[in-house]
Amino acid sequence: MIDKPKAVVLISGGLDSATTLAIARERGYDCHALSLDYGQRHRVELKAAHWVAESFGVREHKVIGIDLGGIGGSALTDRAIAVPEQPEEGIPATYVPARNMVFLSLALGWAEVIGARDIFIGVTAVDYSGYPDCRGEFIRAFEAAANLGTRAGVEGRRFRIQTPLIDLSKAEIIREGARLGVDYGLTVSCYQADSEGRACGACDSCRYRIQGFEQAGLPDPTRYKT
Amino acid sequence: MIDKPKAVVLISGGLDSATTLAIARERGYDCHALSLDYGQRHRVELKAAHWVAESFGVREHKVIGIDLGGIGGSALTDRAIAVPEQPEEGIPATYVPARNMVFLSLALGWAEVIGARDIFIGVTAVDYSGYPDCRGEFIRAFEAAANLGTRAGVEGRRFRIQTPLIDLSKAEIIREGARLGVDYGLTVSCYQADSEGRACGACDSCRYRIQGFEQAGLPDPTRYKT
Repeated sequence: MIDKPKAVVLISGGLDSATTLAIARERGYDCHALSLDYGQRHRVELKAAHWVAESFGVREHKVIGIDLGGIGGSALTDRAIAVPEQPEEGIPATYVPARNMVFLSLALGWAEVIGARDIFIGVTAVDYSGYPDCRGEFIRAFEAAANLGTRAGVEGRRFRIQTPLIDLSKAEIIREGARLGVDYGLTVSCYQADSEGRACGACDSCRYRIQGFEQAGLPDPTRYKT
Repeated sequence: MIDKPKAVVLISGGLDSATTLAIARERGYDCHALSLDYGQRHRVELKAAHWVAESFGVREHKVIGIDLGGIGGSALTDRAIAVPEQPEEGIPATYVPARNMVFLSLALGWAEVIGARDIFIGVTAVDYSGYPDCRGEFIRAFEAAANLGTRAGVEGRRFRIQTPLIDLSKAEIIREGARLGVDYGLTVSCYQADSEGRACGACDSCRYRIQGFEQAGLPDPTRYKT
């Protein structure tokens, strides 16, 4: 029996990354889940990531602590900046400077250590908040840098950053996840969920999610506050 | 009076980054120093970084905690892997997977928050340990990714990753630093220095440093164990 190839899958506890994990598993990878504890305001995310990892029976779920709050500059890490509840023009206040760059770099380091060549990240450039680090151009540029800046890359074992959701709408993501048996009741997308994972129903992330279930024509298992 | 442009300067507490900080200051930047507490074995590095930042009177010295030890895979973060005391073939055991990618990503995030366009890192591709993430090709690829993955980059305020040491030998770096008044007695290069910053004199990093002072024809202020 041939061993399955290893993959590192970034999971946040949200809907997109849970679906990404389901896709990675379906593609035959031995999945190693990675979450980042970066001082996010929505800390129940990490609980949700644990629920998701457990429900998929991943090989390992690692949580790396990193103090992005020290950098500030985002509504998600700095309590002095409010989470917007109305759509904003341009890149919103919830943008965390260089977040995916930091996350992918850590995923890359771990992939190199465990001998994985594939890194999955659930970015999407449709129905999204306009974050620059969710775009395909960025992902391809990161991949190029990864293959120049690592031992494995230099030695010819190229890394691939896989973004299976990048061209999917929220509704398409939800339909794909439902097909693969993802329990979206475990996931938390809300930027200001309470400690039990109940969502506000008003932030950007909630709005995309509600709309996604509506358009997918599937029941929304999200638990909302009152 | 025109404000000086801001720069983020990565400082480790070692000789190269102290020289880089001196160069950034000479080039007229308002320097914001960044160090990473990544579970490094040589923890006195962070003390040395503090001494260096203080001696230069930087605007701010930020230390961000990040648990690279959780990833493992390097003699610098994993106590189960020995620091080699003989030159090795290829990329050595002290290579920390994706370290500069992680460090530059964090510097980028902070630069974006404070409105700096320039990031200085003291990598050198001469007299070095052969780390792939110290090479110019990697730095340029990272810069390209940075400008695609950030709000500032997308809005046309391009980031520059400045590597003033990249083509300098260790002796040239030391001569340049001496000219700029760097007190190398404050810096710690050793991978296994004691808690007072005294060096082993045997690891890769010590060897390059000793040779550098010899070739520069300057007295070596390093404090050695016994």
